[in-house]
Amino acid sequence: MTFKSKLDAAWLDSGSMLMVGLDPDPERFPAELHGRKDAIFEFCREIVDSTAPYVCGFKPQIAYFSASGAEEQLEALCRHIKDKHPGLPLVLDAKRGDIGSTAEQYAREAYERYGADAVTVNPYMGHDSVAPYLEWKDRGIIVLCRTSNPGGSDLQFIEDRDGTPLYLRVASMVAEQWNQNGQCGLVVGATFPQEIAKVRERVADMPLLIPGIGAQGGSIPDTVQAGRDSRALGMMINSSRAVLYASNGSDWREAAAEAARATRDAIKAVA
Amino acid sequence: MTFKSKLDAAWLDSGSMLMVGLDPDPERFPAELHGRKDAIFEFCREIVDSTAPYVCGFKPQIAYFSASGAEEQLEALCRHIKDKHPGLPLVLDAKRGDIGSTAEQYAREAYERYGADAVTVNPYMGHDSVAPYLEWKDRGIIVLCRTSNPGGSDLQFIEDRDGTPLYLRVASMVAEQWNQNGQCGLVVGATFPQEIAKVRERVADMPLLIPGIGAQGGSIPDTVQAGRDSRALGMMINSSRAVLYASNGSDWREAAAEAARATRDAIKAVA
Repeated sequence: MTFKSKLDAAWLDSGSMLMVGLDPDPERFPAELHGRKDAIFEFCREIVDSTAPYVCGFKPQIAYFSASGAEEQLEALCRHIKDKHPGLPLVLDAKRGDIGSTAEQYAREAYERYGADAVTVNPYMGHDSVAPYLEWKDRGIIVLCRTSNPGGSDLQFIEDRDGTPLYLRVASMVAEQWNQNGQCGLVVGATFPQEIAKVRERVADMPLLIPGIGAQGGSIPDTVQAGRDSRALGMMINSSRAVLYASNGSDWREAAAEAARATRDAIKAVA
Repeated sequence: MTFKSKLDAAWLDSGSMLMVGLDPDPERFPAELHGRKDAIFEFCREIVDSTAPYVCGFKPQIAYFSASGAEEQLEALCRHIKDKHPGLPLVLDAKRGDIGSTAEQYAREAYERYGADAVTVNPYMGHDSVAPYLEWKDRGIIVLCRTSNPGGSDLQFIEDRDGTPLYLRVASMVAEQWNQNGQCGLVVGATFPQEIAKVRERVADMPLLIPGIGAQGGSIPDTVQAGRDSRALGMMINSSRAVLYASNGSDWREAAAEAARATRDAIKAVA
């Protein structure tokens, strides 16, 4: 089973295009987890199990683990997701980008060590910086295209001689050159729905990972209308903080589940 | 002491613009290290101590550690470099790039956990993706500009409406906007000396990290002539594999030292 077929099955089986991002910030954890040595793993595991019925996958953000030296907790979390929720794709959000020999190492980190189905990568260094990932035929890469943050415009909006902005050059390059084996997706921020639509026009039914709803303020209806594919699927709409920290009281698991359920429904209502 | 002042002092004290990149590949280690649990640390420590007299700093590539779950060995190596060679800048090669809240975590990883003086970053996500690093006033960032690999041209050579290629837009953006506090450097590959010269024209005496000599084939004389600053300094010319794996016999320490010395001298002969 490939990343793409696993994702397709998850969309259909779950009826959800919500992806929950796992960005564990110990300062925002509920009181019952304070001081626990494995708090990061415990928190994420409970969030995963509580929200699993409402999602099409999970996306751990590696920086939140590596800043705290919590790689072993990330390994345990990834094993848990694969053991307990084998139908849900695991996307490692790492935004890697380096020369080929180094990219081989990063691919091993993502796919072998953490067992990720897909990893986010940065396109700035071009084709040979992503080639080593594509050697893993059953795995995916999700390439940064139009990011949700304000500074995303600094480079991504620079227009070439024909007036085509860089992010659309990236979209075309990925669709036409890097996606020979159907392994690629693109990151396009919910904060720019008009640009999601332009990307969708160029990439047919390629999966889009869409951050920027929730804490970053992107609109769900605008996002869904702009990003759905020919089957009214095609999106991993990410929410992290709005789900993880829906409550830090004793009802934190239920509050996260409810936030995930409500977000799934808001997406479904438009799709 | 800031990254910039530490680097300036290292150039003057060492008389070297060679930076040794630490990309430990256990398959290429000398036989005496095979099967040792801490082989990665041992190998890198010996390389560091053998080559220290001939370099202006060290650049561990984090992918080679994280692929093997060797974060603790990287921590030990960074502590060793800072304890035994306190005058030599430690550049963590990680090429990070993410939204601000995530970049805060990556900055903690690089500067706090590993104690790096500077970290390499990717410019694709723009100003707010680098701002959290710049809050660490005594540390540096080295921004990807014109990379040494073949795919570097895919995006970096795209010209804007005025005919300016993307890598020069990045160089100007970093010099004019991100470098307010003198914390920035740029990565420019030795495989493109004419482009090093164009970058140097735009960024005055900003430090350049230059990979691509040695295994990647860049010319030392062309690189030095194109990249030196107004003081005939200004470059961290990186060599990794050609130094680390100069021999895998019992003379591996001496061979690495000799490769570093010879490379330093080849740089000096032109500068």
